[in-house]
Amino acid sequence: MQRGFKQAEYEARVARAQRLMKDSGLDALLLTTEPEVRYFTGYLTRFWESPSRPWFLIVPLSGKPVAVIPSIGAALMGKTWIDDIRTWSAPDLKDDGVSLLSTALIDLLRDGGTVGIPSGHETHLRMPLADFERVKASCAGLGFTSENGIMRRLRMIKSDAEIAKIQHACDVAGRAFARVPEIAGEGVPLDRVFRDFQRLCLEEGADWVPYLAGGAGPLGYDDVISPAAPTPLKNGDVLMLDTGLVVDGYFCDFDRNFSIGTPCQDVQDAYAVLMDAMVKGQEAAQVGNKASDVFHAMDLIVTGGKGTGDAGRLGHGLGMQLTEWPSFIAEDDTLLEDGMVITLEPGVTLSNGSVLVHEDNFVIRKNGPVQLSVKAPRSMVEM
Amino acid sequence: MQRGFKQAEYEARVARAQRLMKDSGLDALLLTTEPEVRYFTGYLTRFWESPSRPWFLIVPLSGKPVAVIPSIGAALMGKTWIDDIRTWSAPDLKDDGVSLLSTALIDLLRDGGTVGIPSGHETHLRMPLADFERVKASCAGLGFTSENGIMRRLRMIKSDAEIAKIQHACDVAGRAFARVPEIAGEGVPLDRVFRDFQRLCLEEGADWVPYLAGGAGPLGYDDVISPAAPTPLKNGDVLMLDTGLVVDGYFCDFDRNFSIGTPCQDVQDAYAVLMDAMVKGQEAAQVGNKASDVFHAMDLIVTGGKGTGDAGRLGHGLGMQLTEWPSFIAEDDTLLEDGMVITLEPGVTLSNGSVLVHEDNFVIRKNGPVQLSVKAPRSMVEM
Repeated sequence: MQRGFKQAEYEARVARAQRLMKDSGLDALLLTTEPEVRYFTGYLTRFWESPSRPWFLIVPLSGKPVAVIPSIGAALMGKTWIDDIRTWSAPDLKDDGVSLLSTALIDLLRDGGTVGIPSGHETHLRMPLADFERVKASCAGLGFTSENGIMRRLRMIKSDAEIAKIQHACDVAGRAFARVPEIAGEGVPLDRVFRDFQRLCLEEGADWVPYLAGGAGPLGYDDVISPAAPTPLKNGDVLMLDTGLVVDGYFCDFDRNFSIGTPCQDVQDAYAVLMDAMVKGQEAAQVGNKASDVFHAMDLIVTGGKGTGDAGRLGHGLGMQLTEWPSFIAEDDTLLEDGMVITLEPGVTLSNGSVLVHEDNFVIRKNGPVQLSVKAPRSMVEM
Repeated sequence: MQRGFKQAEYEARVARAQRLMKDSGLDALLLTTEPEVRYFTGYLTRFWESPSRPWFLIVPLSGKPVAVIPSIGAALMGKTWIDDIRTWSAPDLKDDGVSLLSTALIDLLRDGGTVGIPSGHETHLRMPLADFERVKASCAGLGFTSENGIMRRLRMIKSDAEIAKIQHACDVAGRAFARVPEIAGEGVPLDRVFRDFQRLCLEEGADWVPYLAGGAGPLGYDDVISPAAPTPLKNGDVLMLDTGLVVDGYFCDFDRNFSIGTPCQDVQDAYAVLMDAMVKGQEAAQVGNKASDVFHAMDLIVTGGKGTGDAGRLGHGLGMQLTEWPSFIAEDDTLLEDGMVITLEPGVTLSNGSVLVHEDNFVIRKNGPVQLSVKAPRSMVEM
């Protein structure tokens, strides 16, 4: 796999952003989070794990983006296609990029104007609130407002090059899932399974494994977000592993269920319902349908149309982050388009209140969804 | 190792917070980020990797914290000591916790009052900006202001139970570093070393490996934050690996340098300077000294007192996050106290502009710093 993207990919992203900015009356975007900065620059580092320093990218209405970043990132940003890179020695307790950012904004918007900032659902501003207030005060001639969902609009539709990276991540996870019988079985503590599964992901080609969740129990699991306890797997347990591993900055996000011994009839029936819901979800995941159509198609199967339980949704977008827009919920009217990458993630609740969840990844194409994650067996794998 | 903390630990944290809130004239804290929520609740999950849903914790001036969270987290939060857990089915595109949070704040502050929010250095607000504005508008009788650095003040001093977890993480990384000769050597591509080192960390007991950086080159490395390329290690290269792995929610953060073959004299000399700077840093890292004293002691050795280069600092705090307050820079006057956990991280620049960086972890104690990371050899390990 070729790492990174061709410069043309970034140029196209910026051009699309600039068209949407023009339509929205915005003169610049101000971006602060990892995926936002990387989307336009290709700046890929795990250093975002450190919360100490803010990072800024300005996308002007014309021309290339301008990076305003801590000097520790100068060398790496210098390897991207960005050439206007302004740095300060961070952390600076008195002025942690505030003046440099304000000056850059004023520079780029000489005639005044409006700066759009991601402010809506699934966004946040990754900088100290007090510093944001100082930036606004320092840029008295500029307006600051919502970016009107431009980042959502752009990132929701993936390019073929992006889809290839997600496919690659899915393939790595698929190979790791195929090896679960090597590491799990009766008597193996769940926390060891979690540790070993991450090892398998790395061996199969993951750059890193930002996300692993799961659970185990006789009729499924209590929830899907808890850390693993050292409880040994028992005969009759269902083991679920759900991973979001990363290859070249792109995630997969799917799970697999395994039965320790032969699954009981309730579990077999529940799994069959999940498989049925996956089929119905795919039938509904067509260009021109709405996200809510996909939700209703699956919800009819898993709850008879009563709506989601605690999980809150039956799937979502996927890409540079583990979860992205849209959400498969009754209220999300997002029109599905060619190039959207999604997870379908139906869950059923069993008699004891435990849940069983299945998840796969797809790209929506003109002729219907194409599965990116390897096909799951129609019956649960027994170990 | 016992997972989690006793309830008394959380009660003490809340009591300390409430004393500081009283001193600052705050009637509640509103917290939104992973470490902030976990600090008072023990709520530990990797699900924060998903950016879709906001999470809220309110710490009132008296009584236990109140969680206002997506229903997907209800089961796990229910296992903590928190008993007032208010949930909504998230994502909700029309009202993603805004009403529930506003109602909770108004409930808890019946006579009005001021809500403190982390707003200073190394903080951010993890919720959509537009929703924050809606919360403020919905709580017209309440004031919203900075929490006055209370979270920094609290989290900077670690309890013995916290220090034991960091020690555990350091021990795991120490064992992984000891096994690097198994996975690295002349001809091995750097990206494979990165992958395999994460595997070693998991095998030695890491829950997960949120951070790995490093580099390789004949006179050190270009920077310390770049992802690994598939470039094979060459005889004479210095390989550096810097990991922030996690055990039970607490990080280590230290690195090790290895020489592929015998290091050249320049590298040997540079490494000796780093070892000397570590000694001087420890001598300065005494209760009652300032963070800046530690900086100056090390900076005198590594640059002759000329100040940091691109890295911006020579170490920092460490704990629930990879990097925390304080910073070892000239401007940080934080007084060092018993129970602070820190990294000392001096770097030297070699003749070709490459850098060599060493890092170890310590807890500051009344009688001086105690090293948590395993002792590094006085001369670089050769492989």
